[in-house]
Parts: sequence; structure tokens; C-alpha cells
Amino acid sequence: MPAPILSRRDIEFFLYEMFDVESLTTRERYQDHDRESFDAAIDIAQAIAEKYYVPIRLKVDSNQPTFDGKKVHIIPEIKEGLDAVIEAGLTAPTTDYAMGGMQLPQIAASGASAYIAAAASTSIGYLSLTHANSNLIEAYGTPEQINKWVTPQRQGRFFGTMAMTEPGAGSGLGDLTTSATKEEDGTYRVKGNKIWISGGDHDLSENIVHLVLARVKGAPKGVKGISLFIVPKYLVGDDGKIGDRNEVALAGLFHKMGGRGQTSTALSFGEQNGAEAYLVGEENKGLMYMFHMMNEARILVGTGAALTALTGFQYSLDYAKGRPQGRLLSAKDPLAPPVNIIEHPDVRRMLLTQKAYSEGAYALCLYGHQLSEDEKTAPTESERKHASTILDFLTPIIKSWPSEWGPKSNDLAIQVLGGHGYVNEHPVEMFYRDNRLNPIHEGTTGIQSLDLLCRKVPMNDFKGYQAFLAEIQLTAESVKLTESLQTYAVALQHAVDNLKEVTTSVMGASKTQNLDLVFSNSVSYLNMFGHLTIAWLWLRQAEIATKQLGKAPHSDDEKFYHGKIQAMKYFFNSELPLTYHWGNLVKNIDSASFDTHPDWL
Amino acid sequence: MPAPILSRRDIEFFLYEMFDVESLTTRERYQDHDRESFDAAIDIAQAIAEKYYVPIRLKVDSNQPTFDGKKVHIIPEIKEGLDAVIEAGLTAPTTDYAMGGMQLPQIAASGASAYIAAAASTSIGYLSLTHANSNLIEAYGTPEQINKWVTPQRQGRFFGTMAMTEPGAGSGLGDLTTSATKEEDGTYRVKGNKIWISGGDHDLSENIVHLVLARVKGAPKGVKGISLFIVPKYLVGDDGKIGDRNEVALAGLFHKMGGRGQTSTALSFGEQNGAEAYLVGEENKGLMYMFHMMNEARILVGTGAALTALTGFQYSLDYAKGRPQGRLLSAKDPLAPPVNIIEHPDVRRMLLTQKAYSEGAYALCLYGHQLSEDEKTAPTESERKHASTILDFLTPIIKSWPSEWGPKSNDLAIQVLGGHGYVNEHPVEMFYRDNRLNPIHEGTTGIQSLDLLCRKVPMNDFKGYQAFLAEIQLTAESVKLTESLQTYAVALQHAVDNLKEVTTSVMGASKTQNLDLVFSNSVSYLNMFGHLTIAWLWLRQAEIATKQLGKAPHSDDEKFYHGKIQAMKYFFNSELPLTYHWGNLVKNIDSASFDTHPDWL
Repeated sequence: MPAPILSRRDIEFFLYEMFDVESLTTRERYQDHDRESFDAAIDIAQAIAEKYYVPIRLKVDSNQPTFDGKKVHIIPEIKEGLDAVIEAGLTAPTTDYAMGGMQLPQIAASGASAYIAAAASTSIGYLSLTHANSNLIEAYGTPEQINKWVTPQRQGRFFGTMAMTEPGAGSGLGDLTTSATKEEDGTYRVKGNKIWISGGDHDLSENIVHLVLARVKGAPKGVKGISLFIVPKYLVGDDGKIGDRNEVALAGLFHKMGGRGQTSTALSFGEQNGAEAYLVGEENKGLMYMFHMMNEARILVGTGAALTALTGFQYSLDYAKGRPQGRLLSAKDPLAPPVNIIEHPDVRRMLLTQKAYSEGAYALCLYGHQLSEDEKTAPTESERKHASTILDFLTPIIKSWPSEWGPKSNDLAIQVLGGHGYVNEHPVEMFYRDNRLNPIHEGTTGIQSLDLLCRKVPMNDFKGYQAFLAEIQLTAESVKLTESLQTYAVALQHAVDNLKEVTTSVMGASKTQNLDLVFSNSVSYLNMFGHLTIAWLWLRQAEIATKQLGKAPHSDDEKFYHGKIQAMKYFFNSELPLTYHWGNLVKNIDSASFDTHPDWL
Repeated sequence: MPAPILSRRDIEFFLYEMFDVESLTTRERYQDHDRESFDAAIDIAQAIAEKYYVPIRLKVDSNQPTFDGKKVHIIPEIKEGLDAVIEAGLTAPTTDYAMGGMQLPQIAASGASAYIAAAASTSIGYLSLTHANSNLIEAYGTPEQINKWVTPQRQGRFFGTMAMTEPGAGSGLGDLTTSATKEEDGTYRVKGNKIWISGGDHDLSENIVHLVLARVKGAPKGVKGISLFIVPKYLVGDDGKIGDRNEVALAGLFHKMGGRGQTSTALSFGEQNGAEAYLVGEENKGLMYMFHMMNEARILVGTGAALTALTGFQYSLDYAKGRPQGRLLSAKDPLAPPVNIIEHPDVRRMLLTQKAYSEGAYALCLYGHQLSEDEKTAPTESERKHASTILDFLTPIIKSWPSEWGPKSNDLAIQVLGGHGYVNEHPVEMFYRDNRLNPIHEGTTGIQSLDLLCRKVPMNDFKGYQAFLAEIQLTAESVKLTESLQTYAVALQHAVDNLKEVTTSVMGASKTQNLDLVFSNSVSYLNMFGHLTIAWLWLRQAEIATKQLGKAPHSDDEKFYHGKIQAMKYFFNSELPLTYHWGNLVKNIDSASFDTHPDWL
């Protein structure tokens, strides 16, 4: 029997015991749903993942897309899988019934998509980007644009991309040079080169809708002069019929370390007369619109990183339970039969660490999805605003914690398998390679750390920061009432106090000292805040588990809840103490690297 | 100009300023050598690495060996490179003049080999294994065996392997089942399957000399019944002429995550009548002989890991100095031209961290080579014994610290390049993949940690442990005299005291408690001891640099020494404090993972 893609029991724990998705059915939008319909969506997703994606995993990884100078070649199994997902209506399960969607709450949808995302490596990225692209046009486009570009994307006939990065600018978006010239008919002509465009060219869909950042002639320099355009691969008539090829050419494919289910392309726009383009919203507001998509994309990156970690954990767990090798240190008889490697304490440590990282990361992402849900559909304005405030604050952590610690989890999965983990007869080395992109794209960890410390923390007079810490405090207070967890509640409280002290100190220093120096340990601050957040989510899980154990559950559930409590203990004993170390570096404004002149390296 | 493979200045610092290789020329064996001859060897190696290896790096990685069922196909550039190394006499530069070697001291040889190993990814592994194989036969074989199998290996005509692991046994060597039957003529017939045999089949050399572990019929079970055999691919007549094919068949190639310069094979021995084999030494002592090779191989693994980290550091440093992107936080003008990314504090942190890990790891390996040299050629018996005692104690750390922290360094090199680090237009993602094998082969990190804590520490009444800590103590005492380094000397002293306390505590607990529990945090102990060792080596480097700065060196050297001091500061501020965290887990016998029942995961 192949290893499970994910633990279904765990998904159900998160959905129904921790984040109580069923309670959302009291909201009007979800009144037709119940646990049965949520489970049905997960069943379908799991079945598709097992049928279409697990069997092709190795083939996708060994056959990345090629470009013969004219056309991109992608193995046909990719399209078969995508078609199955579109057929099942899982392209955009949160979309309105009216647009052909399932109108599922975001967390429930996430539980379903989880199976496909975990099994399909990155090939599902074609659809996630299409979804995000559609959401953006829906939010800022005209009704005509929505009709022409969103409808076929929701139907899975067109796919979408986001085209931001340029070869000379990288993360420095203010320096982009792609130009746009307005024509008399109100359309624009775009010229320039873009790189790292996921899904930038292929024959998987009838058309590709690129969302392109460009600078209108005469616009202000820097980030304030960037506009957003729809630039299709094929022009589309007002009747919706596909017409001529637009001036969007594939300049090359990147050969990636992982994530080979999806092309990463260099595109050249408008080499001759300019590519025909349609402005979204107003000129010079492009970056604001794009951030709409980017914030969503950041949560999706975190979720993908968490899922890749989860599936690697399940794979290595399954392997460790069935692989006999060696004997325990304490074994009296050196000739006794070998034990399964899960019996070795160090293997168990590597498995429990993976559990703590991957399930902790996934809890964080689901919390993000819950906030995003509440931001839109919570019953009162103040609840919606509260959710929005916390989500905005937490986005850099939701993006980067799973992206940093998910790959560490995948690294341990390789180590559990030993030599077998280093070769492609098992997928754990692929999981590692797939996950390694996540700390880079949609804003590197370094960029997220500056976003957190320099923007999100002080923003609106520390409102998001305080609102989120208050949530942690609430949990600490409540958990203190459970005797077996008391010491952990106190440890969490101490870690919060320490974080506050560090924050006050660094914010004070930023008023008088060199900003580049004061914020030079921002990644340590992000690590500290991230670990505190995950400790909080583990304590919440342990609280639920402890309560359930008190109700004498049946034996499989009993084991499951014990596992949750052990992972919490691991995180509190082995990980939470690191927050003090990171905090010291920030508080002391450790300057070892800042003081290092580039020529000294 | 391509990025430098290694920093030549740094290699020279290690050889001439830190480990004083020139002083070895007073030993009889090295009386013909001087700095000039050492430098000449490095010059040749650097030239070969630049000419033959850097240009084919991408091609080797993208074209791993294939097996058509009959023959292994390897791109011809691999052989061209190996031939150049053999031609230059760099196959085994430490070998006696009489055997055609250069008779170089081990550290000097290591400085030369460094360039080739760093540039050739793993393809140089064919020769390193050949060298280790020859050393073993030279140590335990008969004069006839040495003549027949070692001489052609030293000449580069035959290549060698070590064949230990079996599909069913993995690291549990006691369970191996390959059998050997003695024939009337004194030869043996070997039957069985082996996996992970690096260089197990190819046409790069005239013959392949496998060293195979097998169990003679009727031998005791477990590790006490293992013998070592020479099993050639082709039989060789007493005249040295190559004869018939022996029964050694390639069963398959592994498709590895990295290290694609070298085949990793599954071999089947003696499928029909048994492969002709020649016993090395006595029956049932095979594992002891193999450990001779394995201890050497462990130091080589550490060295390879350090070099891969060093070359990744140099590559990302070169990139960061020439890649403009973004502006400093403190920049007043958002429209000012972008700065090179090395100006960003977080990029400098990632570079300095790489420097601290990679140069620290390399210093450790060179210290290992120095001990190995002194073990053989130090003038007095007591010096040789002292070196041997420390080397034996330190081997698990020399093997595993570079293997664990080298890949972390390579991971940061990817991050410095961002998206460009994730694609194969730059080699940093390949460096990461190449390095990832090192915590696995020649004894995983988990196995090394048990070797350290359960064997090497208490061995011979703590003799190796105490001898090594005394060396650290000596440095701390000496460095205290340099005012600018005093606080660091004190910090090192404290860390040693803490380590002693933890060691005493865990050794005490092992006498009364469950051994599997007491030693379940052995990896934390290894981390603690490793970090302490690297801190010590950084303090030694900083002491030399501080002294040299006092002599007002020319400006390039001044920068170089400042870099050394900053890396030491980074290590003491950001890394050494972690030893207290790891020490607590060991001392408190943290049982979160030990207590986790396999069914709870």
C-alpha cells in the first residue's frame, strides 16, 4: 500500500475540532453546506489526487517541460490531471454558485485542495494562479473585462499568470522598465521582458491571460508609476471568440531545481509593435492592485510549503514503520532480529520534529484562511475588521514560517530514509526540492522580515501587533486552567513578555540610531515571532487533545490526541527556547554582520 | 570573469599561518619540500580545476550516467578530467615517491586537492575511493596483493570501490548476508547483492577492484563473522595481464538528487558460480579492516562537505558584489540607483554565516588532517600517540559537523541568489544537492552522534575527551592575553564548563537509567560539541588575525584579517549560545520524542 498523501484524521481535526468549520454554516452564504458536503469535497479531491497525481509524480519530476524554439512540450499526464480537477469543479471551490463554483468556505476548500496540492507537486499551480488572477480582475476590472477574461478562467478554458519580475530588477519592483503606450482606441501597447513567469506558456488551455506590470510613458519614476494590464496570449473578440496571436513570445524556459510540474518562463512582450494590452483600474495604481493578488499568493505559498512538509512527513513515517534495521542500544542480544527504524529514538525525534513543523505550519495557514474568511463573511463589521487587522499583520509570518521550516521538515524526511531518501525511487528528495522555492518567491524571507518588523509591527499605532498578541494571551489564560498544561501556558506567557520587551527595545532604538543597523537582525525577529505563533497554535491543539482524552475516546483517537500533545511538548522544549536567543540578537542590535565591510568577506 | 572556485588567500592562511605546514619540512619524509613545492602543487590543481572541471559542471549535472542494460554510459568529459588529474600526479599526492607519489604532507595535499574536489563535484570520487582502497590493501594485504592490486591503482589504471551495504541491512552491517566459500586453491567464491556502490561500474579504467564484505560459510553471526575480500571486475594473471570477466554484474544505477559526477550502483556478485575473491588478512576480521578505510573516508566526507560549502560561499559572494537591486532602508531618495545586494544587511548576514560555517568546517577538517599527519610522522612516540588519541575521538565530529552545517551554508547561497539560485544557470542549487548526501553516507549523523556520546567520550577512561578539551583550554588561556579577544576567550571557557557539566550529568544517568532514553538526545550532544569545536577554531583564527593586524599589513591582508575577526564574532554571538540550549535538552534528558509511541505519530 502506498504511503498516505496526508493524514485524513489530521485534516478533520483541523477542520472540525480546531477551526470549527461547521459553525460557518450559520452564515447565509454557506447555509446549504454541512459537514457532509465538506467531506464530500475532500473525498473527491483525495480520489483525484490518488488516481491522477501520485502515479505520475516521478514522471513529472523527471520530464520537465522543454522548449524547441517554437513550442513548449509538457507530458500529457499534466493536462489529464488538470482536466480532472476542472471537471470536478475543484478549480475554485470557494467561487460563487453563479460563477460555477461550489461556494465553499475557504478553510473547507483548503482541506479539499490540500490533497491535490500535496500530491501534484506544482502542476496545480496553473489553476491556483488562474484563480488568483481571476480574483484580481474581479476586484478591479470593468464588467466587460470580467466577462471576457474571468468567465473563461473560472470555466478552466483560459489560464492566468502574474508577470511582475524583470531581469534587471528582481525584487526591486520600483525599477521595472516594461513600457506601455496608450493608443487612440483606449488600449495600450506593452513592450518589455519578464522572468520567472510561472505557467507563462503552454498548450494546456485555449488562452493565457497575463497580468503585467508596466510603466505608462510619462508616468512618475519608482513604485508610484506602475500600472497593471491584461495582456492575453491570443486576442479575443467581443463575441468571446479567440482571434490572432498577440505579441507575447516565449523567450526561454528555466531549468528549476524542483517544482517541475509547472513551467517557469522568460517572456518577451511586444518585440515588434507592442503587445495589445488593457488597463486594469486606473493608471499608476498597478502595484496596489497587484498586492491584492500578492497577499493572497503569500498565504497560498505558505500553505503549499506546509502541505509539502506534511506529505513528506507522512511518507517518511510510513517508511519508518515498515523498514527493519539495526537494534536498540539497550538490546542485550546482538543477534536478535532487527527492529523497525521507528523504534530508534533518533528516528522518532526526526519524525516528531517533522510533525511539529508541518502540522504547526498547516495550523498557521488554516488560521490565515479562517481570518480571510471572517474578513469577508463574519456577521458583524467589527468582527470583519478584527480579522482583517490580524490577517494583514500576520501575512509575512504565514508566508515565511512554513516556507522556512517546511523545507527543514522535508530535509528530515530525507534523513529518515537515509540513502534511499537521496534517490528518486522515493519522492522525499523531490519534496525537498519542490519546497525550496517557497522562501524565495512572492517576497523572500528577508523581505518578509522587513515587512513585519518595519511596517506591520508599528502600523496603525501597533494595532495589528497588539490585537494578535491579545489572542495569544487569551489562549494562555484559558489553558492555565488545565492542570497538565499549566507549565506550557506559563512558558508561552513568558515568551510573549520577552517578545514585547524585544519589540519595545528595537522600536526605541529605531528612533535614534541608524535604521539599517537597528533592523539588520530582522530575520531573527521574524524567527522569534514565528516560533511564538507556532507554539501558540500547538498549545491550542494540545488543549483540545487533552479535553478529548478526558472523554475517554476510542483507542485510535486516543493515540491521535497523545501524538498532538507530544508534538506540543517537543515544540515547547526544543523550539520555543530559541526565541530568547533570537530575541537577544535583536535587542542587543548584534552588529557582527552589519559591521562587516563588503571587502572583508 | 567567473567566480573563484575557492579563496586562494584563505587556503594559504590555513596552510601557512594556522597549521604551519612549512614546519613539517623538518621531518625527514618531507625534507625535499618547501613552500614553493606546496604552492606548485596547488597551482597545478587550480589550473586543472579551472580548465577541466568548472566548464563541465552543468553538463555533468544534467547528464547523469545511464545504463542500457549492458553498459554504463558516462559523458567523455569525466574521463578527460580524471586523466588530467592522474597525469599531473594528483591522484594520491601523499603517496611515497617509490609508489609514484609526491610524498606531500597531508595538509598540503589537501590544499591542492581542494580545488579539484570543489570544482569537480563528485567525479573526483572515483580517485578518492581508489586511493582509500589502495591504502587499505597496503595496510592489510600480502605483498603479492599489493603488487597486483595497489600498483595499478596508484598508476590510475585500475579504480577501486568499497562494497559494504546490502539492500536488507543498510547501516546494520551485522546483518549482511553476502556469502563466501573457500575453494581448494585458497581463493573464495562470493555471492550476494550490494547497493550504493559508488563507482561500481564504468569504463573509465582498465579494471575495478571491489573491496567486499562477506560472511564465510560457518562464520559466527553478527559483526564478528565478517571477512573482507578483493573482488575484481576482471581477473588478473600473475603477469599483471587482464583476463576474463569475473562474476560481478551491474544490477542497476541509482538516480541521485546530486553528486551526479559519480555512478551509484547496485551490484550482484556471483550469480552463477560465485565471483572469484581473495581474502584480505584473516577471516572474520573484515570489519576491523574496513574501519581503517572508513575512518579515513569519514574525514574525506567532512572535507568534501566543507569544500562544497566554501565554493558555494565564494560563488554567492561574487554574485552579491555584482548584482544591483533595491535600496537601503535608510535611503532618502527612492529614485537613487539601486545598490549591489551585498550592501543589504540581511544579504551580508547570509554571506557572513556562510563564511563562518564553511571556513569553520574547513579549519576542522584541516585540523583532522594535521592530526592524521602527526599520528604518522610526528617526531616522538608520545606526540604520535597524542595525535592519534584526539583524532580518534574527534572523527565523528569531523565527519558530521561539516556534513550538517555545510548544506546549511549552501542553502544560504541559494537564498542570496534568490530566484536565480533556484535554476541551473548558476551552480548553487547543484552544490546544495551534492552536499546533501554527506549527512547520510559513511555513517549518518545519528550514528555519528551515538559513536561520540556512547563510545568516544567514555572510551579509555575519557582519555580522548579530556585530551581534546585540554587543547581548547590552552587556546582560551592564551587568547585571554589579547585584550580585544578576552570576552570571547571567557565565553569559550564557559561553554567548555557547560559541556563538562552536561557530560558528567548524562554519563551519571547512563549508569542508572534506561540507556535508550538517556542517549536519545545524542544529536543535541553532537551539535553542542561540534559548535564548541568550531568556536574554538574560530577563536584561533581570530587570534592570528589580531596579531597580524597589529603588524600593519598591506591593505588587502588587512581586509582579510578583519573578515576573519567578524566571522569569529558572528559565530560567538549567533551560534555558540545554542550550545546551552542543546546542553539543556541532553542534561534534562528531554523525553518528548522518546515517550512518543510509534502509533501516536
